[in-house]
Amino acid sequence: MSKGTNKGAIDSQPEALNRLLHSEADKLSGVDRRRFIKNAAVFSSAVVAGSAMASSNLPPNTPEWTKKLGLPVNTHPYGQPSPYVAEKIVRRRVPWLTPDAIASISFTPLADIKGIITPNGLVFERDHAGVPTINPDEHRLMIHGLVERPIIFTMEDLMRFPSESRIHFLECPANGGMEIKGPQMGRLQFTHGMNSCCEWTGVPLRYLLEEVGVKPEGKWILAEGADGAAMSRSIPIEKALDDSLVVYAQNGEPLRPENGFPIRLFNPGWEGNTMIKWLRRLEVGDKPYYQREETSKYTDLLYPRREDYKDRYGKAYIFSMEMEAKSVVTFPCPEKPLKGKGKYILEGLAWSGKGRIKAVDVSFDGGVTWQTAQLKGLVLPKAWTRFALPFNWNGEKLLVQSRAIDETGYVQPTYKQMRDARGTHFIYHNNAIHTWMVKESGEVDSVQIFEKG
Amino acid sequence: MSKGTNKGAIDSQPEALNRLLHSEADKLSGVDRRRFIKNAAVFSSAVVAGSAMASSNLPPNTPEWTKKLGLPVNTHPYGQPSPYVAEKIVRRRVPWLTPDAIASISFTPLADIKGIITPNGLVFERDHAGVPTINPDEHRLMIHGLVERPIIFTMEDLMRFPSESRIHFLECPANGGMEIKGPQMGRLQFTHGMNSCCEWTGVPLRYLLEEVGVKPEGKWILAEGADGAAMSRSIPIEKALDDSLVVYAQNGEPLRPENGFPIRLFNPGWEGNTMIKWLRRLEVGDKPYYQREETSKYTDLLYPRREDYKDRYGKAYIFSMEMEAKSVVTFPCPEKPLKGKGKYILEGLAWSGKGRIKAVDVSFDGGVTWQTAQLKGLVLPKAWTRFALPFNWNGEKLLVQSRAIDETGYVQPTYKQMRDARGTHFIYHNNAIHTWMVKESGEVDSVQIFEKG
Repeated sequence: MSKGTNKGAIDSQPEALNRLLHSEADKLSGVDRRRFIKNAAVFSSAVVAGSAMASSNLPPNTPEWTKKLGLPVNTHPYGQPSPYVAEKIVRRRVPWLTPDAIASISFTPLADIKGIITPNGLVFERDHAGVPTINPDEHRLMIHGLVERPIIFTMEDLMRFPSESRIHFLECPANGGMEIKGPQMGRLQFTHGMNSCCEWTGVPLRYLLEEVGVKPEGKWILAEGADGAAMSRSIPIEKALDDSLVVYAQNGEPLRPENGFPIRLFNPGWEGNTMIKWLRRLEVGDKPYYQREETSKYTDLLYPRREDYKDRYGKAYIFSMEMEAKSVVTFPCPEKPLKGKGKYILEGLAWSGKGRIKAVDVSFDGGVTWQTAQLKGLVLPKAWTRFALPFNWNGEKLLVQSRAIDETGYVQPTYKQMRDARGTHFIYHNNAIHTWMVKESGEVDSVQIFEKG
Repeated sequence: MSKGTNKGAIDSQPEALNRLLHSEADKLSGVDRRRFIKNAAVFSSAVVAGSAMASSNLPPNTPEWTKKLGLPVNTHPYGQPSPYVAEKIVRRRVPWLTPDAIASISFTPLADIKGIITPNGLVFERDHAGVPTINPDEHRLMIHGLVERPIIFTMEDLMRFPSESRIHFLECPANGGMEIKGPQMGRLQFTHGMNSCCEWTGVPLRYLLEEVGVKPEGKWILAEGADGAAMSRSIPIEKALDDSLVVYAQNGEPLRPENGFPIRLFNPGWEGNTMIKWLRRLEVGDKPYYQREETSKYTDLLYPRREDYKDRYGKAYIFSMEMEAKSVVTFPCPEKPLKGKGKYILEGLAWSGKGRIKAVDVSFDGGVTWQTAQLKGLVLPKAWTRFALPFNWNGEKLLVQSRAIDETGYVQPTYKQMRDARGTHFIYHNNAIHTWMVKESGEVDSVQIFEKG
């Protein structure tokens, strides 16, 4: 590699990414002196250490870590993240959001997540009485009520049933709930991070129901957790016989404690809170059980404008289990600003509780004009689907939005459409189109666009 | 739930799983006294504690953890496994297998893995000079040699390129290498556990090669790692332009240190060692570089019987990159024995470096007769595919085998076929059909069946 060649390389650098990339030879020849100086602290120390070593033939700029042995194999028999990311990329709790840390929430850092799998260490958690520490050998699942043969299953029993593994999203219906009255939470992790996507493995609930024999009058199932809140929800039998699972593994390994270890109910595409964690009991009944967490909570009072919806005003959505289509742009976002004019690739996530994502549109002007994004990789039912769209930023202010359409034809609504239907006095099922404002500086704010009524 | 009902339930217990499941009421009524006594330590302590609490209306057998608050949300901002599994389900090193723990191996616990995703904490590792602790801000990837524009990329540069996320297996070609002369390693974790499957995200290498402009005479690429071994391999340009990635994420989060943080090369379907970890340098040349790790290692001397293969005897396989179709039964296996006669569901994993798995056959009599297994869930190219087959065990000795067939029609060979082709003096690319012997006790041994020549 001659200096001449590299000089030419720098001069003819392709502008595809609008960023001056540099070669080692360029730095050494002083072509890009400022960059060399900036990096000198890194590379010069390596050179000094190298010259002191027996291997005198080490090339220049050999990094420090190449000149010595690393950590032994199996340093962590259960592997851990790099110390360089271990504190940056974590689930986070927002201290002021809940009165204490026991009945609280931690959020998946969506801005740093790639692909469609959320690693188990970063799956969000929402607990109602903290995370119980359950001994799986002592844990039992009882299925009783309107059944022919009430049975108590051990973990070992459950593991002997046929299993299924499926990739599905898991979203709290309160995800984005703070934004309904206007922008509150600022960062992507907190506006959309009560949402994760894993490969879940467990027993189809219908096999267990066949085993106990549901009586003809059995129409609803009460699912109850073994946590201190005895968190409980009523599930219609149709869902239970369709695609619900009693899961014991996420991304290949046993469930994490905060995600329901040793077992949780999993209702694909439905509200996360219906997927009772630390599942202890399924009671079959002939009607819903109207538990605390499905009447005072996880129910939405409707206050649209009186003149528009006389029949809805003051009523409530209850048992609104299905998560409707939603999407969000994950780059750019407040955590990942733009750094100077040029070409970028917008990325985002879309999902629908009704099935597959069919398309995602992206707007850079707050919903005036739309372009169709590319769906990337696997497009699975009731799972995250990643989308991308290359764009060129000329440094002007942008109002970036994404709009998901699922295979049923359902289109993600605007905030105006959502408020017209429900008012602003609700908490759950905010699936409105979100707006990121990219400022001239490249920094990104969470905003809402005022839409005329 | 009356005692009478439950008495009936026990009497009419379906024998589908040939296991006496039991209800709480049965235990209390003494129908299954021995089981009750066995479990008494669990339940009686819960009852006592319950009676001492204010909540006098707690039902009997309420477990200890339901009567108190659990751990706060975000106890581990980066989540950790349950203490009940954290020491049981880990990667393991075999102390006698390598002279030290620096150039060594730890194994994925395949017997405990569900689905097709291996969680990052359990992905196997094979290091040649330990695991370097690399600061990603200081790490660089240089692409040079027979290129128009040599470039040094920062991590930030790489993240601006279009990315792809794909689920692929990663297998060391030495996986099973100890078994070539006969059963050695005993347990599934060690006979097949240098193999994992993740969702990998990174930049297609062809984009980076387009950026630097490979000269027409550029036919091979030397990939070099930033570890103390400067681990290096030669990759043909055709693979690099096909589906190779420079990956920076596994299962959604940054690569783990032992898997190449901050970047590694990923050559789908090829030997794990070609997927250089801690990737530092790609040099384009006109021929292979014949590095230490592709001549003295990762090359197989061929010693089949002289009379059969005169033209091969004493020659070697070199640059045998592709991992051919392979499979293994993960249940039953030495770690997961059978517990009494009855119905079970055999499970296993199959994979091929050539593409998708087309079918898997299972034998219970050491390969005399075969049945077709069911392929479960996603069947993706160059990825783990899970298979299952229900069977009824009458308590007799079994010789359990699986045989993968991939979409090219390639059939996993027997040990006899493999030895006839290559002799027994090789280490890499043992993809022979493996045999588990289920003994009358239900315990499982790793065996090899003597096959007449």
